Amino acid sequence: APVHRIAVIPGDGIGTEVMPEGLRVLEAAASRFGLDLRFETFDFACWPYYERHGAMLPPDWQDLLGGFDAIYFGAVGWPEKIPDHVSLWGSLLQFRRAFDQYVNLRPARLMPGVRSPLVRADGTPYAPGEIDMLIVRENTEGEYCSIGGRMFEGTERELVVQETVMTRHGVDRVLRFAFERARRRRGRLTSATKSNGIAITMPYWDERVRAMAAGYPDVAVDQYHIDILTAHFVQRPDRFDVVVASNLFGDILSDLAPACTGTIGIAPSANLNPERRFPSLFEPVHGSAPDIAGRGIANPIGQIWSGALMLDFLGHRDAHDAIVRAIEAALAPGSGAPRTPDLGGRAGTADLGRAIAEAL
Amino acid sequence: APVHRIAVIPGDGIGTEVMPEGLRVLEAAASRFGLDLRFETFDFACWPYYERHGAMLPPDWQDLLGGFDAIYFGAVGWPEKIPDHVSLWGSLLQFRRAFDQYVNLRPARLMPGVRSPLVRADGTPYAPGEIDMLIVRENTEGEYCSIGGRMFEGTERELVVQETVMTRHGVDRVLRFAFERARRRRGRLTSATKSNGIAITMPYWDERVRAMAAGYPDVAVDQYHIDILTAHFVQRPDRFDVVVASNLFGDILSDLAPACTGTIGIAPSANLNPERRFPSLFEPVHGSAPDIAGRGIANPIGQIWSGALMLDFLGHRDAHDAIVRAIEAALAPGSGAPRTPDLGGRAGTADLGRAIAEAL
Ligand SMILES: CC(C)[C@H](C(=O)O)[C@@H](O)C(=O)O
Ligand SMILES: CC(C)[C@H](C(=O)O)[C@@H](O)C(=O)O
Repeated sequence: APVHRIAVIPGDGIGTEVMPEGLRVLEAAASRFGLDLRFETFDFACWPYYERHGAMLPPDWQDLLGGFDAIYFGAVGWPEKIPDHVSLWGSLLQFRRAFDQYVNLRPARLMPGVRSPLVRADGTPYAPGEIDMLIVRENTEGEYCSIGGRMFEGTERELVVQETVMTRHGVDRVLRFAFERARRRRGRLTSATKSNGIAITMPYWDERVRAMAAGYPDVAVDQYHIDILTAHFVQRPDRFDVVVASNLFGDILSDLAPACTGTIGIAPSANLNPERRFPSLFEPVHGSAPDIAGRGIANPIGQIWSGALMLDFLGHRDAHDAIVRAIEAALAPGSGAPRTPDLGGRAGTADLGRAIAEAL
Repeated sequence: APVHRIAVIPGDGIGTEVMPEGLRVLEAAASRFGLDLRFETFDFACWPYYERHGAMLPPDWQDLLGGFDAIYFGAVGWPEKIPDHVSLWGSLLQFRRAFDQYVNLRPARLMPGVRSPLVRADGTPYAPGEIDMLIVRENTEGEYCSIGGRMFEGTERELVVQETVMTRHGVDRVLRFAFERARRRRGRLTSATKSNGIAITMPYWDERVRAMAAGYPDVAVDQYHIDILTAHFVQRPDRFDVVVASNLFGDILSDLAPACTGTIGIAPSANLNPERRFPSLFEPVHGSAPDIAGRGIANPIGQIWSGALMLDFLGHRDAHDAIVRAIEAALAPGSGAPRTPDLGGRAGTADLGRAIAEAL
């Protein structure tokens, strides 16, 4: 079996609690499918490291991590101690940029045993699997450019400006990825912009969508403004398949979509460098959750599901599918599997992690 | 009674169909409350005008409209004939800027007889009035700045840039308005930014919120990132009171919030110049709806409700309340009032408009 070298970064808060469960399930998958996963753990990208070193990362972090096939990440951030824009721009957002992880991939799927807060127009609930979208987010440019600054500081005339930058290179490659995925799924692609209001960058994105669509006659394309699209997510979430958007709009939609499936606490996320020139990064959508950290009650499914996405990316579709099935089996009503408090039970993080590993 | 001079601009599509019903209800309110409303209708800001004149507005539109107390607006846009960024930037967005309508106000309230697509965590529906938010959107600067451009056009190196500009003047005045409203409502204010990702402009907005909050110790302030806030709208919409946000984020939230109350087709919107140096503008949230235009089946409630906001702004709170009660009475299950197709009935625009006018 090919060797897969994986850098493990638990990070802050519940990141350190859910990571062992993610690893437990990956080990179980490795033994069932005969995979050779080699883990190495790093203690940076967290507040305790910052406290000791005055930085989120060691100076040679790119060398340390660059040779791995993947980074398995927990969560970062501890706002009481260190502002988010320092901790995140000093770690996670560095990884995304330096390792050119230009696709952020976030599946949102209504799982069995998880309640969606949405009902159909006739008042009936959606069935498991009926809401099933894949959000494809541009992950390196767009609205997240730190170009700009402040003027007339501290006076009544004070102002701030910040650039959004979109490049053809950056837009086309994420669109191509999204079209390819749509082709392999249900053949529908929805693009979110705001061209009627943000009238320079957003029409450009639309233009590139139309150009790319010409090469994918088999994919049905819809273009929406982000405002009305959020309304449609709530009104007709079952109508969407692949949804592609800029860095900011993808960020918003990839929290809203899991919220629509009731799964924001268990949603996974993949930050991909599809060409594999650099390691890709896999992390739960949830953050470090300081409010429940240290109590051993965090739901580990986001971390475990992210591990499944990692195995898929490393070429093991069968192992991915088996983990997702094990998660579904644990969540299914009447499964008897332990449930963490967010799922209405009293079990701990490790109880649920063990149950999923055993189901494998 | 003081004279109120009102410019009426029906605009495109269903704008021309719902406007007569809005006027009908305003006339009814005027006679009941002894108001002196003087209407003058203008035929610009629509595709037919553009077709004849090659522009959305006459050159002297600022003089023509500047002396009115308010503008009562239908809808603009006809994408098949003219791109949105031309029709909107050539009319509606001009009004907002030139008349310094820096507050966009959008109530979202669960009305009787209207189904919310959301249910509570225990699966039960929300009751009318239980979801009741007021979105306060900055309406003149922020992400909607047309500063920027394109480089290396038509080549592989092509890129676009666009500025976001926030001024202390612009941010503080809309925040002050929102804090004042929160004080008069339930005393809660939620601010939406994205400071962990958009790390120059958004932290500035947060900073101004904190500065303003110091002067409103009686208002409870929450600051959220926009991504997780959209998730909370879906999960706990009853927890929000006043929500204040930048131009773009306010735009998104003020479609999402009505969607959460099932009322996107009937939601109203006020574009205010609170100091009354310029006319304020009142319009339904819905657009010109080319797909149903010309059939006389559009729901006129958004237009009527916007008229109520106009009377409130002109100093007639009692007339506002009476119109909202008449809308609620018509919507209430078993009211016997005619229902348009979007509400599950077969009535026409005028039937529903007449019913509401009569209920007054
Ligand atoms: C039409 C468009 C430019 C406008 C906006 O984004 O302001 C609309 O969505 C609105 O919310 O009034
Ligand atoms: C923490 C924050 C900067 C980040 C983002 O917006 O990218 C997060 O919300 C995410 O979606 O991964």
